[in-house]
Amino acid sequence: MKLYDGGRAPNPRRVRVFLAEKGISIPLEPVDIGAMQHKSEAFTAVNPLQRLPALVLDDGTIFTESIAICRYFEALQPEPALFGRGAKEIALVEMWQRRVELNLMAAIQAVFRHLHPSMKELEKPQVPAWAEANKPRVDAFLALLDRELADRPFIAGETYSVADITGLVAVDFMKPAKLALPPECANVARWHADVSSRPSAKA
Amino acid sequence: MKLYDGGRAPNPRRVRVFLAEKGISIPLEPVDIGAMQHKSEAFTAVNPLQRLPALVLDDGTIFTESIAICRYFEALQPEPALFGRGAKEIALVEMWQRRVELNLMAAIQAVFRHLHPSMKELEKPQVPAWAEANKPRVDAFLALLDRELADRPFIAGETYSVADITGLVAVDFMKPAKLALPPECANVARWHADVSSRPSAKA
Repeated sequence: MKLYDGGRAPNPRRVRVFLAEKGISIPLEPVDIGAMQHKSEAFTAVNPLQRLPALVLDDGTIFTESIAICRYFEALQPEPALFGRGAKEIALVEMWQRRVELNLMAAIQAVFRHLHPSMKELEKPQVPAWAEANKPRVDAFLALLDRELADRPFIAGETYSVADITGLVAVDFMKPAKLALPPECANVARWHADVSSRPSAKA
Repeated sequence: MKLYDGGRAPNPRRVRVFLAEKGISIPLEPVDIGAMQHKSEAFTAVNPLQRLPALVLDDGTIFTESIAICRYFEALQPEPALFGRGAKEIALVEMWQRRVELNLMAAIQAVFRHLHPSMKELEKPQVPAWAEANKPRVDAFLALLDRELADRPFIAGETYSVADITGLVAVDFMKPAKLALPPECANVARWHADVSSRPSAKA
């Protein structure tokens, strides 16, 4: 088994943090996104969508999509449960994972991909108006999240979950996207400090 | 338990098709998106993100996000399994569900939301250049899917899954988005005819 890894990009980091929380160690094969290695013929054979990360099993099965890779390890090694336990918790974790991914992480990525000069060759065409349309969405979702985190320690409830991993990676990706956490989001800041202090955050 | 439903919009339909495949019937409460009922104060109290569908349990728990609602029912009633069985199948279904959702459905929705005159009040601002940027993505993903469906009956393998539901709903949503299935996508057309002939497709 080996994991094609993409360094500082948000999705590869989601899987590395997840594996660190599980205490699972697997061989990593670095793919240099800056050098466009993910667009190479060799990597396109692994993932025709040319995105990272990708997990290759010993039997040749290939999984792409960070959350699919995480679910594979959750099924292999259920503890600690990062996708919830029981119908209600499973649904709440999925809901928050998706809310954070689709409303926060995707909006931050849209700002980065469609404005940052380093993305000119990778995001064709860059649509700056789309980046600008996403900036207020980032702040609106952070305000919602701040209200939610007033009452509980983690994004999906009392327990750390994959929703916190997506949230951590998303908030940390605000820096390269040249976005800042609004100062009134004190609960998000407290949560972010908590999840950042876990050893897995360094993964 | 009741499901706030959004009529012809793609996400509410995903949940209705899923429930039909499971043989589960629950009370539906229609919310008229055309009349902006999902932006009302009453519905905002249910889902602050103002999106449909939303499931409310008898104890007051609210789930939003179609796939989270589907996972709740999968956990309550595992058969027929629509999210896969065993670690490998679970990961493959998740991978394909996400690939179809993020590369096909999201791209079709971007075309619809950012070009269609009826969305002027709902999608602010409309960014027509973003819609145009997504058109080639739709065709590129359909070409990839066509190659995949040459070798198997369903999107994630030998068995109908939630990935097929997302695919069906996405392809059917091409019509309001004024997009057409490229004639060379014969395998996608065959798969689409198959999944459309299931009774659940009418949900």
